[in-house]
Amino acid sequence: MATVKLWTDDEVAKSPRVKAVFDDIRATRKTEFVNNFWRALANQPGVLERTWASVKEIMITPGALDSLTKELIYIAVSATNSCSYCAHSHTAAARAKGMTDEQYAELIAIIGMANETNALASAMQIPVDSEFEVD
Amino acid sequence: MATVKLWTDDEVAKSPRVKAVFDDIRATRKTEFVNNFWRALANQPGVLERTWASVKEIMITPGALDSLTKELIYIAVSATNSCSYCAHSHTAAARAKGMTDEQYAELIAIIGMANETNALASAMQIPVDSEFEVD
Amino acid sequence: MATVKLWTDDEVAKSPRVKAVFDDIRATRKTEFVNNFWRALANQPGVLERTWASVKEIMITPGALDSLTKELIYIAVSATNSCSYCAHSHTAAARAKGMTDEQYAELIAIIGMANETNALASAMQIPVDSEFEVD
Amino acid sequence: MATVKLWTDDEVAKSPRVKAVFDDIRATRKTEFVNNFWRALANQPGVLERTWASVKEIMITPGALDSLTKELIYIAVSATNSCSYCAHSHTAAARAKGMTDEQYAELIAIIGMANETNALASAMQIPVDSEFEVD
Amino acid sequence: MATVKLWTDDEVAKSPRVKAVFDDIRATRKTEFVNNFWRALANQPGVLERTWASVKEIMITPGALDSLTKELIYIAVSATNSCSYCAHSHTAAARAKGMTDEQYAELIAIIGMANETNALASAMQIPVDSEFEVD
Amino acid sequence: MATVKLWTDDEVAKSPRVKAVFDDIRATRKTEFVNNFWRALANQPGVLERTWASVKEIMITPGALDSLTKELIYIAVSATNSCSYCAHSHTAAARAKGMTDEQYAELIAIIGMANETNALASAMQIPVDSEFEVD
Repeated sequence: MATVKLWTDDEVAKSPRVKAVFDDIRATRKTEFVNNFWRALANQPGVLERTWASVKEIMITPGALDSLTKELIYIAVSATNSCSYCAHSHTAAARAKGMTDEQYAELIAIIGMANETNALASAMQIPVDSEFEVD
Repeated sequence: MATVKLWTDDEVAKSPRVKAVFDDIRATRKTEFVNNFWRALANQPGVLERTWASVKEIMITPGALDSLTKELIYIAVSATNSCSYCAHSHTAAARAKGMTDEQYAELIAIIGMANETNALASAMQIPVDSEFEVD
Repeated sequence: MATVKLWTDDEVAKSPRVKAVFDDIRATRKTEFVNNFWRALANQPGVLERTWASVKEIMITPGALDSLTKELIYIAVSATNSCSYCAHSHTAAARAKGMTDEQYAELIAIIGMANETNALASAMQIPVDSEFEVD
Repeated sequence: MATVKLWTDDEVAKSPRVKAVFDDIRATRKTEFVNNFWRALANQPGVLERTWASVKEIMITPGALDSLTKELIYIAVSATNSCSYCAHSHTAAARAKGMTDEQYAELIAIIGMANETNALASAMQIPVDSEFEVD
Repeated sequence: MATVKLWTDDEVAKSPRVKAVFDDIRATRKTEFVNNFWRALANQPGVLERTWASVKEIMITPGALDSLTKELIYIAVSATNSCSYCAHSHTAAARAKGMTDEQYAELIAIIGMANETNALASAMQIPVDSEFEVD
Repeated sequence: MATVKLWTDDEVAKSPRVKAVFDDIRATRKTEFVNNFWRALANQPGVLERTWASVKEIMITPGALDSLTKELIYIAVSATNSCSYCAHSHTAAARAKGMTDEQYAELIAIIGMANETNALASAMQIPVDSEFEVD
């Protein structure tokens, strides 16, 4: 189905660059499961390394936003882009991080309304209020 | 600039339906300022009423997500849709609700990375892992 | 502001290929006014010719949909794509073809709701009902 | 496949809030068939109620646009958003409301051309003609 | 799965307009294989004829860009639009035209990064530098 | 206009992290001019550093695709996303790297057509041919 081969663990084992990233994914996430996104990126070791480094720094390193909030933001982008894979993987990730049904219901409502009001503003090309500008 | 007239307060005063919504916006938000989005929607009183009722219920009524998190999600959708008006208005709203520079920096990073990995997944049409499916 | 020069009528007059298209636009639309879209496309005469030929056949030749309905559909696409130029030009075109304020209000409402429910369906990745499939 | 459970009629029967909406969908549409969109929204009763109320008011209540034109607009948004579920469900709905093959062929042509010219205008960042502005 | 019937060769043979296009596709591409895109467009002979004429002129006629570069650009648009069919068909086409794994890896990286920086620019609504403007 | 302050050179000089990136941008590009994108990112030094590192590796380090082809791909993504800033900055970059008017005309034509056929494929939800699948 994909436009590239999805690497099996046997294939990963033969490429030291890819194996190093997969090992770090497993150690960081504390699970043997590595999802298809990384098995597809394995075809491009440079992209794989850069992407995992960014994901680790942005999504996993503790910061000013908690990790569940980060996943909710990720789901919002994924739904807006109609990215099937991303909606599935990040909804699963959010649930694993404790997202409740009530939180998901509110998230869904916000995603729907934001896309609605975005379309209204774009249809009418509403000019930005001067009050919103940063000096 | 807009495709519709932006209603002034004088014009609003002459339409009971529009005035009722503007009064409720001012009372709910505890400010005299009503931004252009609502002044544009005033041309369609039915859309104005429904949209404000939804915004009030989804964004303002306390729920399972706090109001700053809701604004962060809104910004993520707006950036992904390239909605200029919405990016401006919801970034201003998030700051008014206490968003710090550190939180904004992380939000920006997540929005960028989510759009990047969404594009990677869409380019390679990666199949959804069975582990992500809901039974 | 554009990434290309917008051709003046003097410049158009010096290029027979461009002039032929501009003459046909003016004759077909029964107005001297030629909007910036065509003045930008003038930089690529082949694209200009093909695009005008398609617009003429799809939007102007009488068919199974009336010309106002066609403009409403065009506005819906333009708002969804956040295309500022297109939202402006096709809203003006729809008004010139008789779009009433009531019709515009309903169009706006549909565009908003369609973008909302699209986002809901994409967020939850709802599977297509077998009833909707064409055999 | 979905990120949420799709409610069966037995499950719907146990939730008075969800059942009330499903009963109204069936009564309004005069059919026992309720499509997956609503079975997914059933997980979020508040979103379900608001969404159905909006759909009923915007798409079903007679207004300035006829109901087939409304579906054509919906298809245009759905195709532009690459929303698989929505393209399927609203094309089926348009056919049920009498869309002919000739109308669908013209709709398809307009959707294609609008997305093409939107991209041209965005690529070249063509400035809006002053003639298109609303005073 | 599609919203329209996919025409078999037997059905194509019965429609002179459709057959003429399919014959030209086969002759131009030097293969008997005609992919589903054209079998779906066969339902709208006018759209089929115009689309094939444009594809032939833009993608196949030798010009200032080589044919592999054209396919890379096509893949970039398709990934950004989350178009599953288009990502598959144009990645296959690029490989048939000689795209190497190294080129695909770089293409993927550019598509990801462009979508990332687009989102950053849209989120912060960065004003265009005067240096980028065309006089 | 932006949602963040654009850093002046004086402000950059006071932040060692930001100054190091700006110095490298100037040295790598061999010009004193630093465009607004980086002046906006300066507000988030971590995002600034990561983004510049990625741009340098992906767009500037010689690889399997030449640097003009990379810019054409970037423009295609930017136009599809309706990103005003990005369309401007990458069109200027492509011209600086030697893009001719003929190449730009073909690029524009491909971007338009790809968005058109993407919309056709999404509207009709055309199933992927088995011939396009990777084993």
